[in-house]
Amino acid sequence: MSASAQLSLQGSFALPVLFDLGATFAFALSGALAAIKRHYDIVGVLALALVTGLGGGLIRDGLFLAQGPTPLLTNPHYLEAVVLAAVGGVVFGARIHRFARLIPVVDALGLGAYAAFGVQKSLLAGLAPPAAILVGVVNAVGGGILRDLLCREEPLVFKPGQFYFLIALGGAVVFLFCTATLGWSANRAAIATVALTFVLRSLTITFNWRTAPVS
Amino acid sequence: MSASAQLSLQGSFALPVLFDLGATFAFALSGALAAIKRHYDIVGVLALALVTGLGGGLIRDGLFLAQGPTPLLTNPHYLEAVVLAAVGGVVFGARIHRFARLIPVVDALGLGAYAAFGVQKSLLAGLAPPAAILVGVVNAVGGGILRDLLCREEPLVFKPGQFYFLIALGGAVVFLFCTATLGWSANRAAIATVALTFVLRSLTITFNWRTAPVS
Amino acid sequence: MSASAQLSLQGSFALPVLFDLGATFAFALSGALAAIKRHYDIVGVLALALVTGLGGGLIRDGLFLAQGPTPLLTNPHYLEAVVLAAVGGVVFGARIHRFARLIPVVDALGLGAYAAFGVQKSLLAGLAPPAAILVGVVNAVGGGILRDLLCREEPLVFKPGQFYFLIALGGAVVFLFCTATLGWSANRAAIATVALTFVLRSLTITFNWRTAPVS
Repeated sequence: MSASAQLSLQGSFALPVLFDLGATFAFALSGALAAIKRHYDIVGVLALALVTGLGGGLIRDGLFLAQGPTPLLTNPHYLEAVVLAAVGGVVFGARIHRFARLIPVVDALGLGAYAAFGVQKSLLAGLAPPAAILVGVVNAVGGGILRDLLCREEPLVFKPGQFYFLIALGGAVVFLFCTATLGWSANRAAIATVALTFVLRSLTITFNWRTAPVS
Repeated sequence: MSASAQLSLQGSFALPVLFDLGATFAFALSGALAAIKRHYDIVGVLALALVTGLGGGLIRDGLFLAQGPTPLLTNPHYLEAVVLAAVGGVVFGARIHRFARLIPVVDALGLGAYAAFGVQKSLLAGLAPPAAILVGVVNAVGGGILRDLLCREEPLVFKPGQFYFLIALGGAVVFLFCTATLGWSANRAAIATVALTFVLRSLTITFNWRTAPVS
Repeated sequence: MSASAQLSLQGSFALPVLFDLGATFAFALSGALAAIKRHYDIVGVLALALVTGLGGGLIRDGLFLAQGPTPLLTNPHYLEAVVLAAVGGVVFGARIHRFARLIPVVDALGLGAYAAFGVQKSLLAGLAPPAAILVGVVNAVGGGILRDLLCREEPLVFKPGQFYFLIALGGAVVFLFCTATLGWSANRAAIATVALTFVLRSLTITFNWRTAPVS
């Protein structure tokens, strides 16, 4: 851990356990529903639920931070949430779509929470600030990109569409600014980040704000 | 290493060296033959042989366990087996298909052996039991998934087809159950796992048992 | 670090900082231009610039060596070069194509430099010689492969085409031979490697030397 990283974080925030597992469940459920829509078998449902639910965190810990086994694997509850989402998707099938209205809400909350959490964990691991922003963004949107790749889709997030990645990027920048420049506590900065990204994402969905191709 | 993981394994089993290298060779050869069929050049043959032969182990050690360089790279024999398979595929070309009848047999043996080995290595690294099962399965089937991704195929393993992934999953669960619940030695549990997965995979091929789409 | 690796390297070479950042910028710019051509939005431009500019190094450090956070993330200048390339690509758009004539030159220099650097870093991490060659090659060509995968292209490098991967492979082998067998200093071996790969790549482009499918 570098001295500058130690200086730049006042305390640290932990995601509330129920929120963390709930968001994992919601992401995993969205992956399972995508697999069901594509007529995959149970293996494909499990795989897409896993990749969508934990992909961002696995890239963060396994590829970027590389500091031994990730808590996502040493704590059994994350995988239990993924399996529960896959089984729930299969058992309740089409009827789950009513419940599925909750997914964009959880997703909008998770976007900011995971972006802030990824930035914090990266700073604690000694990463430079721009790299911490990168890892925060990947933590927030990585699962969706992996899901698209495994379905052999061109990742949606790269093509013009509703603001999603940019909101995660904004959340990571805001969290870094509040903790490192303003000296806020990590907890306070995380709450501000989640509030901001949630409002932006809700407005995006409501008014269908969209990015444009650069050429 | 957590105390519970230490308690749950009685001894440990090592894959017999010749089997380990033979399975790597067989997996790599199947990748090389796929590349030749697609009219890739020598680069593509080498790359697919590598990814199919070592992909599962590289994901296990590099992404999930993240404990420094993997034995697959510090021990030169694994890459030598891959290069040998690629060269063999190119030199013997079509004639190798007679030899290729052996591949499903080695593959069926490797499926259980790598599932058990992945579970064991994960438990020793302190992973939770469900995560150890995940890593065991990825160790067994990861190379084939990466091969399909690099060929820009939708991974076959996700779509309805013959039991393959589910047998690897069964093998990982059985190994965990025998060692952690029944208290068997790792060696005995590994032999039971390989025997079970080999029989199930042989029956699957013989009777063309298949999974169904979930919707 | 193994004793043999210590013996096999006389000193070590560091990429000149300006060259290293310049090559990162050039690779990233080629990714950004590819994204612009495909009408991606700013997110896609950033993502492809990042993956093409740093992909090879991230695979080297994150997946193969797994020794904690990579210098590509702890040193902020690499990501700054990537962002600069993405912004430059968007702002200067089509006019950049004149500047883009420089890219094959930088690319040809980077191919040998990164191959040598990857081999050296792998030997220092205790990898076996064939694995060090593999990591050197991935370090040199990995960004381009990841870029193709994310665009849902079959990686160009696998299909018959101009010598590229094979030149990186040749560079990695030459660097290993010069340092480990001939006992040259790492600096001298790196200069020889870069000179050789640059000449071979220039001849390849000039005379359109191509690989053939193996069948």
